[in-house]
Amino acid sequence: MSVQPLDDAPRTAGAALPVRPTTGCLDPLPLAQAAITGGFWARMQQLNRDAVIPHCDESLEKVGWIGNVRAAVDGTLATERVGRLFTDSEIYKVMEAMAWEQARNDSPRLRGRLGELTALLAAAQHGDGYLNTFYGYPGGPGRYSDLEWGHELYCAGHLMQAAVAMIRCGVDEGISSIARAAADHVCAEFADGAREGVCGHPEIETALVELYRLTGQDRYLAQARSFIQRRGRRTLGDTMYGGRDYYQDSVPVHDADVLVGHAVRALYLTAGAVDVAVESGDEDLLHAAQRQYDRTLERRTYLHGGMGAHHHGEAFGADFELPADRAYAETCAGIASIMVAWRLLLATGQERYADVIERTLYNVVAACPGEDGRAFFYVNTLHRRSPGTDPEPGVPSLRRTDGRRASWFTTSCCPTNVARTLASLDCYLATSDADGLQVHQYAPANISARLPGRGTVAVRVETDYPHDGLVRLRITDTVSGPWTLSLRIPGWTAGGARITGAAGDVHADGGRTDLTRSWSVGEEVLLHLDCGPRVVHADPRVDAVRGCVALERGPLVYCLESVDQPDLDLDLVSVDIDDRPSETATEVVVTGHVLPDPAQSWPDAGAGAARADGSPVKLRFTPYYRWANRGTSTMRVWVPTT
Amino acid sequence: MSVQPLDDAPRTAGAALPVRPTTGCLDPLPLAQAAITGGFWARMQQLNRDAVIPHCDESLEKVGWIGNVRAAVDGTLATERVGRLFTDSEIYKVMEAMAWEQARNDSPRLRGRLGELTALLAAAQHGDGYLNTFYGYPGGPGRYSDLEWGHELYCAGHLMQAAVAMIRCGVDEGISSIARAAADHVCAEFADGAREGVCGHPEIETALVELYRLTGQDRYLAQARSFIQRRGRRTLGDTMYGGRDYYQDSVPVHDADVLVGHAVRALYLTAGAVDVAVESGDEDLLHAAQRQYDRTLERRTYLHGGMGAHHHGEAFGADFELPADRAYAETCAGIASIMVAWRLLLATGQERYADVIERTLYNVVAACPGEDGRAFFYVNTLHRRSPGTDPEPGVPSLRRTDGRRASWFTTSCCPTNVARTLASLDCYLATSDADGLQVHQYAPANISARLPGRGTVAVRVETDYPHDGLVRLRITDTVSGPWTLSLRIPGWTAGGARITGAAGDVHADGGRTDLTRSWSVGEEVLLHLDCGPRVVHADPRVDAVRGCVALERGPLVYCLESVDQPDLDLDLVSVDIDDRPSETATEVVVTGHVLPDPAQSWPDAGAGAARADGSPVKLRFTPYYRWANRGTSTMRVWVPTT
Repeated sequence: MSVQPLDDAPRTAGAALPVRPTTGCLDPLPLAQAAITGGFWARMQQLNRDAVIPHCDESLEKVGWIGNVRAAVDGTLATERVGRLFTDSEIYKVMEAMAWEQARNDSPRLRGRLGELTALLAAAQHGDGYLNTFYGYPGGPGRYSDLEWGHELYCAGHLMQAAVAMIRCGVDEGISSIARAAADHVCAEFADGAREGVCGHPEIETALVELYRLTGQDRYLAQARSFIQRRGRRTLGDTMYGGRDYYQDSVPVHDADVLVGHAVRALYLTAGAVDVAVESGDEDLLHAAQRQYDRTLERRTYLHGGMGAHHHGEAFGADFELPADRAYAETCAGIASIMVAWRLLLATGQERYADVIERTLYNVVAACPGEDGRAFFYVNTLHRRSPGTDPEPGVPSLRRTDGRRASWFTTSCCPTNVARTLASLDCYLATSDADGLQVHQYAPANISARLPGRGTVAVRVETDYPHDGLVRLRITDTVSGPWTLSLRIPGWTAGGARITGAAGDVHADGGRTDLTRSWSVGEEVLLHLDCGPRVVHADPRVDAVRGCVALERGPLVYCLESVDQPDLDLDLVSVDIDDRPSETATEVVVTGHVLPDPAQSWPDAGAGAARADGSPVKLRFTPYYRWANRGTSTMRVWVPTT
Repeated sequence: MSVQPLDDAPRTAGAALPVRPTTGCLDPLPLAQAAITGGFWARMQQLNRDAVIPHCDESLEKVGWIGNVRAAVDGTLATERVGRLFTDSEIYKVMEAMAWEQARNDSPRLRGRLGELTALLAAAQHGDGYLNTFYGYPGGPGRYSDLEWGHELYCAGHLMQAAVAMIRCGVDEGISSIARAAADHVCAEFADGAREGVCGHPEIETALVELYRLTGQDRYLAQARSFIQRRGRRTLGDTMYGGRDYYQDSVPVHDADVLVGHAVRALYLTAGAVDVAVESGDEDLLHAAQRQYDRTLERRTYLHGGMGAHHHGEAFGADFELPADRAYAETCAGIASIMVAWRLLLATGQERYADVIERTLYNVVAACPGEDGRAFFYVNTLHRRSPGTDPEPGVPSLRRTDGRRASWFTTSCCPTNVARTLASLDCYLATSDADGLQVHQYAPANISARLPGRGTVAVRVETDYPHDGLVRLRITDTVSGPWTLSLRIPGWTAGGARITGAAGDVHADGGRTDLTRSWSVGEEVLLHLDCGPRVVHADPRVDAVRGCVALERGPLVYCLESVDQPDLDLDLVSVDIDDRPSETATEVVVTGHVLPDPAQSWPDAGAGAARADGSPVKLRFTPYYRWANRGTSTMRVWVPTT
């Protein structure tokens, strides 16, 4: 792993992509060069465009969070402000989503709405660049009076990310001067020697680095670097959520070995640390971030890619503390994990980070919105023991942790985070380097890259993945002489995969396979992945699922949902892993058994209590991301073996 | 189960006991008639007298919570009040502890301190009986302005319990008029037709009933009954801790099937419900409370008797959701469970409730204070994966959930609750009824009861229980004609127990054994309980410990602590249950194995990962209540089988 300058790929303001390092192993592709054209993710993006984004925008109006900005303009915040202290950030995330969406499909409506919102923000911004509706108005709490919980720099960071997205997508509308003024204000206020603090919720770090990448202003990078270096020095107060670990202020970022505390905070901080590391050539910092994330993957990550085992503090647990029924696995933590994995993939070229992205996208991000795109999971449990309840209609849910998806939350970070992620998803498909093109995620798509000094190469991908394991890649543009088409062989393919076509017959193990040759337009490569059902075993140190297995199919985690087996108590079933699973179009069926209801259960159920008897039953597994769309239900991913 | 009037046992103010129903199956004995004279609990009571109670009193001064009462007297609360809103209650619980302690061993010092504190409270009480240092002073928040979180009636309830204890222990010092005025104020303020609300934290219900039992004032019982009947009507607001379930305001008490939400709240409410039921002859309410508690025992209770699986909301989880490593099992919930079990034992005579009391006393209450009696567990986990940290010295811990015991907490309910429980523990040993004496807990003790119209019977108990299973009961006073000496045979004795001596040779199964005969002074009964180590199996529906066993010895739950096996990683050991455990004076040794560290652990560790190999190791188990007294350590109660 090393941090090397990339060749000069085009870096105009119009290259629409969320993360754009100036050094690293792989170069990301903007939306114009990576476009999903159909299949699983195109359907999700359509849902995002038609339902999620409009729903978020409407909700922001309905609950008055955009109204807060109007009240800031009107000077009426003291009497009219509503909502929690981070509501501004939701506006910024929706603006970011609109920017990506508009870049993928030009829309006068989205462009107009972005213009409206930008004008409102411009009017609300203070003369010195400060912009926040919760703090700093006459009669309100003072600016930066609560660094622990105030989320002011967090909100500012999301403003900058929205601005970067809008500028790169060609809908500036005046956002660049707002974001620059906000960033300049932060740099002045938090300069070394001035207010040497950090924000309780990281986010400003990664945002400032991206603004630096866009503008070339060194002081934004320097400020981000200061925030990273100040962290872990115990400048923030104690909390009841695991002390200062809660906001990663116990151990300096360079020194930590594993992610701790609030999962979203920890992961946003790590994303910022990677950004700072690659831009400032700090290999120690890059190693530290990678070491922490790798250990977190190995020991603190749920099967579906979700992170954060504790409801209390929305936090990482100890190693292997991964209760299925109390999985918190906040949607935003999944998104934040993708942010980190993507940055590490670009920095190191290690394909296993693309595996993490795939797993988390299909099983956390895709599970968040319901089928109508207007209700969302905040928490992504792997086991629901009782059917729970529907949210109260018309009322924003508190952090809803049981029952079905809710349409809005008093802390509504997840819907807006999903919106911006889905809208920019194309950018995560592939990368390029001097030698060629790397395909990391398989979806019907057109992908192209400019090889420095040589011209453009391009492939068209056709596949019904993940439902089918055949991926067809056709060369649609090429350069003279050999170049390399690289394919990710997912880690879940225990036996590797077969590649056929123009490059001959190749067996490839998990990881990256490079196909280097002189390619001709029209040539095809066929990647054959075995997407049949398979049984997965957890680390034996994960107490919560000891003696259990899970079922997967391709990158999809499957689950048992009670609506598919209404006569069975899911708490009492076991699965016979010697049985060969059979498949239908929508489900996988495996033989199982039912445990007898123990006569006595506490304190000592007796040695025989766990023995299944009775005739076999059929257990019907469906993809996890689809659950809870057919009424209230119980569900489990991990099932005891017979 | 029925609610029948008891014969008229003596009910003078001087009969020192915490719970004194006027109807029920069994009659409790006051301190004078049940006295622990040695052994396990005498040592704990000595620690309580010498360390816990003084430590609590000193801490209350040091952190300024008694100072709050002085500030109330001085009218300086607006500028000087410190601590959270329920700090008053800790003063009351320590006063209650001092009262019991003083009654067991008359102490001018304790009596003097109780007088001082009582005088202070008298000076702080408002003219209309209201007494609270957080609300209702000029410039402070208004009385009852926050029924959800304000804890005003909770604090008032603890004041009444302290007063009942002091009065019954013969140290009135003026507390009776304070408590009566406070109760009269509550009855006026919360009368039907007036403020028809309930307190977010139950406690007032059981307190008002006990004050009714002491004073005979019907309106206190009527008010308690109103609070029970109002509960579950959704008059309190929503919470982010599982909605209104958090404070049991979703379902009426008469209708609920299981305990939900914040465990201490739920159990205090249930104690109050039993009290109201037995005093008002409401059999439906008694059945409801018993049904809820029984189901909670069966499905929502940890092996050590701890209750409350969730850190988030300090709450009960779903059925069988009992993660060992995230067990919350607050000490106060254990104490509250004992409160409920004791009331149900008195009401129904069912000996299994004494089993619950025994299990919870030995494994939750006894585990709370450290060996020096000046540090306490708030949370009683069954698995500590990483050694954690010591609390910051000199700073009250927030709700400390990892690492070692802390000397004080910002919410410091557990130390004071343990203090009052240990000081009154003698009362839980035995009961009487018209036919004789029932011994429920085995400790060296003198126990006597007056049989109505016949005279006094008494036994002396000698035993080294729980370390040894022989319990010797000698008749020290008797009446003419037959009467019944009843012994509890603990539920953990799978094969029952043998009784020898004056009553002949008897084999007795778990539950209650009645020995009815004409007893002579000096006659002995010997109860032989097998206190050898035994293996315990959890309900197979408890995912968190599937495939694991625990080790018990008598009523003691055992655990593996890393300090006893420094070379082993407790996350990787398994136990061979076919091996015969060997015993030393302080530990039980069993053969085990070490699992190999899986090469890959996430997402799929492979089918072979859980197979132990290598040569056998010795696993050293020690009593759970003693853990974490020898430096930071890891620990587990449940261990996978090889």
